[in-house]
Amino acid sequence: MKDRPHQAAKHDFQVERLIFFSDAVFAIAITLLVIDLKVPKIEGAISDQNFMIALAHELPQLSGFILSFFIIGLYWTVHHNIFGYVIRNSTKLVWINLVFLFTIALMPFSTAVYSEYSFSGKYNNLLAPFGVYVINIGLIGLMNYILNRYIFDPKNKAAEGFSSNYVKFGKLRAIAIPAVFAFALLVGFFDVNIGRMMLFLIPVVMVILHRKQKKEEQKHIHGFQK
Amino acid sequence: MKDRPHQAAKHDFQVERLIFFSDAVFAIAITLLVIDLKVPKIEGAISDQNFMIALAHELPQLSGFILSFFIIGLYWTVHHNIFGYVIRNSTKLVWINLVFLFTIALMPFSTAVYSEYSFSGKYNNLLAPFGVYVINIGLIGLMNYILNRYIFDPKNKAAEGFSSNYVKFGKLRAIAIPAVFAFALLVGFFDVNIGRMMLFLIPVVMVILHRKQKKEEQKHIHGFQK
Amino acid sequence: MKDRPHQAAKHDFQVERLIFFSDAVFAIAITLLVIDLKVPKIEGAISDQNFMIALAHELPQLSGFILSFFIIGLYWTVHHNIFGYVIRNSTKLVWINLVFLFTIALMPFSTAVYSEYSFSGKYNNLLAPFGVYVINIGLIGLMNYILNRYIFDPKNKAAEGFSSNYVKFGKLRAIAIPAVFAFALLVGFFDVNIGRMMLFLIPVVMVILHRKQKKEEQKHIHGFQK
Amino acid sequence: MKDRPHQAAKHDFQVERLIFFSDAVFAIAITLLVIDLKVPKIEGAISDQNFMIALAHELPQLSGFILSFFIIGLYWTVHHNIFGYVIRNSTKLVWINLVFLFTIALMPFSTAVYSEYSFSGKYNNLLAPFGVYVINIGLIGLMNYILNRYIFDPKNKAAEGFSSNYVKFGKLRAIAIPAVFAFALLVGFFDVNIGRMMLFLIPVVMVILHRKQKKEEQKHIHGFQK
Repeated sequence: MKDRPHQAAKHDFQVERLIFFSDAVFAIAITLLVIDLKVPKIEGAISDQNFMIALAHELPQLSGFILSFFIIGLYWTVHHNIFGYVIRNSTKLVWINLVFLFTIALMPFSTAVYSEYSFSGKYNNLLAPFGVYVINIGLIGLMNYILNRYIFDPKNKAAEGFSSNYVKFGKLRAIAIPAVFAFALLVGFFDVNIGRMMLFLIPVVMVILHRKQKKEEQKHIHGFQK
Repeated sequence: MKDRPHQAAKHDFQVERLIFFSDAVFAIAITLLVIDLKVPKIEGAISDQNFMIALAHELPQLSGFILSFFIIGLYWTVHHNIFGYVIRNSTKLVWINLVFLFTIALMPFSTAVYSEYSFSGKYNNLLAPFGVYVINIGLIGLMNYILNRYIFDPKNKAAEGFSSNYVKFGKLRAIAIPAVFAFALLVGFFDVNIGRMMLFLIPVVMVILHRKQKKEEQKHIHGFQK
Repeated sequence: MKDRPHQAAKHDFQVERLIFFSDAVFAIAITLLVIDLKVPKIEGAISDQNFMIALAHELPQLSGFILSFFIIGLYWTVHHNIFGYVIRNSTKLVWINLVFLFTIALMPFSTAVYSEYSFSGKYNNLLAPFGVYVINIGLIGLMNYILNRYIFDPKNKAAEGFSSNYVKFGKLRAIAIPAVFAFALLVGFFDVNIGRMMLFLIPVVMVILHRKQKKEEQKHIHGFQK
Repeated sequence: MKDRPHQAAKHDFQVERLIFFSDAVFAIAITLLVIDLKVPKIEGAISDQNFMIALAHELPQLSGFILSFFIIGLYWTVHHNIFGYVIRNSTKLVWINLVFLFTIALMPFSTAVYSEYSFSGKYNNLLAPFGVYVINIGLIGLMNYILNRYIFDPKNKAAEGFSSNYVKFGKLRAIAIPAVFAFALLVGFFDVNIGRMMLFLIPVVMVILHRKQKKEEQKHIHGFQK
């Protein structure tokens, strides 16, 4: 009688609805990022050249938009992937997922803070706004880890059909991005600009994890076939 | 011939579509809350310290965002839960649901009003903006109650498979949040700050209701087994 | 080979996707209306009384929000209802639907124009902003009519299972709202305030149409039973 | 073991979820365009006439809104159409689709830039803002082309049931719009206004492509029947 069960026929639909609600929040958060991109204001004479200068001042916002778009997109693919194994809805899953979505919905704000103060010339030396952004990413990673742990904990009976290898790398992937950001922030204490460049490690780390997972999977299959 | 029936095959889909439309409105309202969070404006010299001061001035907005996010989230889980029993679409259900969604869609506005005037230093003594927020929550609770009553009234044939115990606590839950808010507003007439602190009763009330429901359910099962 | 057919299994899904995309646009347009509601700005001393005065200045925006919310909601229920009969996707249906969605997506703009200039004291005598709003409603009604005609034209094979009575009232309903608005605009040429009051005819007209449809349906059933 | 397979039962749902997420992003981007339409501000005396003058100043924004609405709508119909053949989800498909969605999500920004600087009197002579818009359309077309190529490449096993003729015209259609825009930009180097008028070629090109595809399909069917 736990979690007020629905009819069997309705049950799958309850999981689906949880997923579609999550998709909608992801989609809105990812698209709302664009609101931070303002029409550049030309200073001085109206000319194509001055327009380009004004547009160039938007580059921090544009970089922030691109970075956050793909970070939210990445976590959407992760959500998409792990919920492919979910077979059972529960109050606890709904709430963990909701807190996770909260960290996603916060991204347009922390991205705007980061873009405003972390790139452009005169604010170049500020670390705190970058810290706000890193904390948001860290919370996303943390909630993603908790979501992973809940879903793939056999005693919750929330999912089925997954391999232990999948779960292990799922958790690694959940914390990889925040780890890179924390490292970037740490480096930032010494030099903000070099710290920020550390973010280019993200794709490198993702590819390394991906390859390692592939290798272990093949090892596992070979072991299985023998 | 009531409510212009669709083909049997299409019927389930009509209920689904009602649900997905509701999910979309919930998801947009919950994510639009972030728009009220503005990039903090540093006053004085550009330094990490002054940035933190500027960020601290955003705390009312951030608190409002968090509070409203989880209130909308809570009502989404309730909607998610009760619609798990709905088997029949009707014009009346569509319209009650629409008015309910209206009260949800209003939240970004009443949250912004509440955040702007109810926390920050100089407006600290205002009660009316908090009242606007409480009225919005009250309307959500009222419509949720009406939705519950309509769906679980046997003569509407809108739902099936639910227990009378579930319905009873569903209605209690619908009015619990507005009741706490009304109480907080009442206390607020004497002291706004203490009134606002009463909101911390919400999780307490929810947990008490949850435990009581569990207990009655077990009593019911035991009574049934004897 | 018309309209590049998909596999049978995929076909229903193509119709569903058209519907969900429409639902998303409806849901976003209906929720974006709230963006026009700004936090009231207190003038003079900070007091609950002055806050209420500032809030009262938002009444035109709030009225516009409520009116447009339920007009969009009404057209959503109509869309929800007629697409319950659609069985076949086609390029033409997709494009008629897209133009219809365009008129819906325009509503937050025309509502803002109408709210800004049509209610508040000093702009009270303007008719043109009300005209902008009426034109938008008119376009929605027109596209809804065209959508109705396309879907229920037997030679398009887009829908099945509907009665001729249903189609007749569907078309009547599509033009009822724009007709009331056109009438209100006409009256507005003589007195804007009385013109605007004519909008209260909308629910009256809807109820009359609903009753008339019921009566004709029963007549039809009785005729059928004899 | 590639791309961590889900259970067969879940597999279709994974493709569906990819599609619904895409639909949500399309729907939000297309509806967010309206945010760029601001309430016209009357200058001088408050009169219907001065309101109309103020409204006329919004025409560039309105044109941009209409143009972008139907361009996004067009690419949605293309997405809707090609995903009707997709049967298999993969990490690569998810990411190509995500980059495609990025180019769609950017549209409200580039539309605002284009509307602000490319139409109105005093900025009439600027080409760069139009270039920003053309580049965005170009990126959409490019990603749409890449998406087409990936989905219909037999060795990816992503889709089935399509004809070679369909694929050929799908790719042509993907690049037709950007081609017209590039041509318009080229003409714009000589005269911006004439360049902008070249955009009216879009529907012409689309109709020509549509007719040509029909003709080739019929030829193919006739060849098949003989």
